[in-house]
Order: sequence, then C-alpha cells, then structure tokens
Amino acid sequence: MTTRIVELRRGILKKNDELAAGLRQRFTAAGVLVLNLVSSPGTGKTAFLERTLRELRGHGAHAAALVGDLETDNDARRLAASGAPVRQINTHGICHLDAEMVGKHLDGWEEIALEELDYLFIENVGNLVCPSSYDLGERIRVALLSVTEGEDKPLKYPTLFNSADAAVITKIDIAEPCGFDRELALQNIHEIRPGIRIFETSAKTGVGMEEWLRYLEEVRG
Amino acid sequence: MTTRIVELRRGILKKNDELAAGLRQRFTAAGVLVLNLVSSPGTGKTAFLERTLRELRGHGAHAAALVGDLETDNDARRLAASGAPVRQINTHGICHLDAEMVGKHLDGWEEIALEELDYLFIENVGNLVCPSSYDLGERIRVALLSVTEGEDKPLKYPTLFNSADAAVITKIDIAEPCGFDRELALQNIHEIRPGIRIFETSAKTGVGMEEWLRYLEEVRG
Repeated sequence: MTTRIVELRRGILKKNDELAAGLRQRFTAAGVLVLNLVSSPGTGKTAFLERTLRELRGHGAHAAALVGDLETDNDARRLAASGAPVRQINTHGICHLDAEMVGKHLDGWEEIALEELDYLFIENVGNLVCPSSYDLGERIRVALLSVTEGEDKPLKYPTLFNSADAAVITKIDIAEPCGFDRELALQNIHEIRPGIRIFETSAKTGVGMEEWLRYLEEVRG
Repeated sequence: MTTRIVELRRGILKKNDELAAGLRQRFTAAGVLVLNLVSSPGTGKTAFLERTLRELRGHGAHAAALVGDLETDNDARRLAASGAPVRQINTHGICHLDAEMVGKHLDGWEEIALEELDYLFIENVGNLVCPSSYDLGERIRVALLSVTEGEDKPLKYPTLFNSADAAVITKIDIAEPCGFDRELALQNIHEIRPGIRIFETSAKTGVGMEEWLRYLEEVRG
C-alpha cells in the first residue's frame, strides 16, 4: 500500500505543479506579486497579514488576500477589517491549500481583477508540514515562526524553512516573558536556509513592519 | 483522482483502526494507561510532558513516553531529563503518528515492559489536522492549546477537539502579555466538545499540574 500511496502522491503533486505553473504565468502577466504565508496554527499569520494589508493601503498600494482554513470564515472577517478585498477558502478537512483551490477561488472572485492588484497574499492553512509540498504559483514563500513556539522549529520542519524565500518572526513584543532565545532561533533558521531574509516583527506594536514593507516593495520592483 | 484518494485513505484508516484495536487490547491487558497528546507545533507539549513525567516520578508512579517528530531527537533528549524512559519516533516527513509506528517502536524497546508501567504518554507530531484521524490505541486523547495561539482554534480544528477526552491549556503564566481571553477559549472548547475536562496549566510555574495529576490517577483507577 505504501508504494501505491507514494505513486499517487507523486501524481497529485505533479498535477499541482502544472496548475501552479499556469497560475504563476497568470500572476506574472498581471504584474501582481503573490506571497504564500505558511506557519503553525497560532503563529499569528492573520494578525501579521491584517497589519500588512492595512499598512500597504496606507501607502496607496493595492493588496488582496485569499485565506485558507479547514472551517470557519473567522480569518476572512478579521482580515476584511483592513479594508482590503479578502476571500475565504474552506478546505473542509484538507490540511493545506493547493493550486486548484487557489485557481477556483480567483476565478469566481468578482470583487478583484488581478491586473489592478500590486500584491496578493495567500494565507495557508495552519500547518508546518503539508503546505510545504504544494506550490500555489507564488513568487515568495514566507515561513512564519512566533517567539512562543520554540527555537528548534526550523530544524524540526526543515522542508518548510528550506523552501521559503523569507522568514518572519512574529510576536516579538512578548519575546521576553516567553524566554525567546533570539540568537538560537536565527542560527537555526540560517542552518536550514543560509542567507534567508529574516524579519522580526510585532503586529501589535508595529515593530519590524517598516522593514517588511520595504522588502515587499523591493521584491515587487 | 479524488475518488481514488478517498478510497485509499479509507483503506489506510481501516487498517490503522485494526492495528490500534490490537494495541488497545495489549495496553488494557498490561494495565497501563495510554494517552495521546496532540497539539499545534509550539504549544508546549514537550515542556508539559516533561513536567508531568517528573512529577509522576516524584509520586512513585512508573511512566514512559514515545515522542513523534518529523526529524531530530531533540524532544526525546529533553524528555529524558525527567528520568523516565523515552523513545523517539522519527516519521521522516509523515505529519502524524499511526498505530503501526507505535507498535513497532514498542516492540523494539528493550528498556521497558508495558506490564511494569502505570502510564505511557505518546507525544504526537505537532499538527492539529492529521493526527485526529489516527487512533493509536490510546485510552485518553488530550488536545493541547496554548494561551499564545488564539482562542478560536477549537472552532477551526473541530475534529481534534471533538475527538479529545481532555483539553489542556498551556503557558497560563504568559496569559496576560498574550492578551488571552480565557472565557472565550473555554466557551469555544465547550462549544465543540460539551463537558470536556479542561486543565489550565503552566509547565514553567507548575500551576494546574496538581489537578492534572489527580485526573490521571482518577482515570487510571
């Protein structure tokens, strides 16, 4: 049974890669920078993204978000408070987003035209394992890690950190009560992905957001 | 392809259920209480378990732990500091433990005899989704949630909370800087699993551990 699973999984990932390649062409043609945000549940992806959307809006940029969850549209409702267009993808038990879900939800989205967007953020399902294998056509994959989670996460979930283009440390404002060992965390991230850009942020206080926004502009070019 | 996946998944889960039933008989015959600890990565399962093992030892109870991770044996080494026998299961990319892995690692474990144990803890891979579907033969499934994670986790991951026998809230010592809304968290847990026993704990300060240990003794009978 294991062989059949491996073959089937390979087939699914191949099909996903093809769909993702199509999405990537579409995104490039539209001139929109697409980012895929991956982290554990509870890292604070939604709070970080809500603040990012709000600040981008303040800078006059056009940004939208697709947000994946097993159930509920809590995150879409929270993100909508930023004023940006947001659409929820409910996976109903699937522990990751795939390119097909993203394509479908873009097609049916009356509110936005890709050509008018500067940024599209895709907030993945909270999971450090499976999302790593599914390309969504993004240009930038962002691995998020909070100061509450333990500094060894990059070593324990190498596939995510190894496939990420940027790392964001969240909840920096509570680093001290959490006993967060900053040096060790940075060292572990660099061990898995040498030279990766790392942002140390707090969605609550705004620390690190300016540098993050500058990076977004840089990459968008 | 989706139909084939669903069928194959059903086959795998059926096989797992059979193996888990065998394990459960074995555990019952040996008189050992087996608990399966499930949470997001970074909730503090290992710190909570390390303190539990240490305090049980102080009470003269015999406890051991199996600990699942994709890679590394960091957790096994941390847990071993409690003095209890600990064995690491590396899943090499699989995002959950299954009954077969548990059976295999018990069989090759020279250090312990199930009959001599009072408690066996199985620390699952950090993941709120897939472990919910895999019975490990445990008698008690424990869902853990930290004060740093957001009070809506039970609503977003209903399968786990709905299949749990007990819920443990961790890192209570940093509830305040995290802005944790206790009432909302309790309400959300009870909405998914009415009447479930909930323990509010800190592995750092020891708050709530006494009640948790009393519960373990109670269930063991």
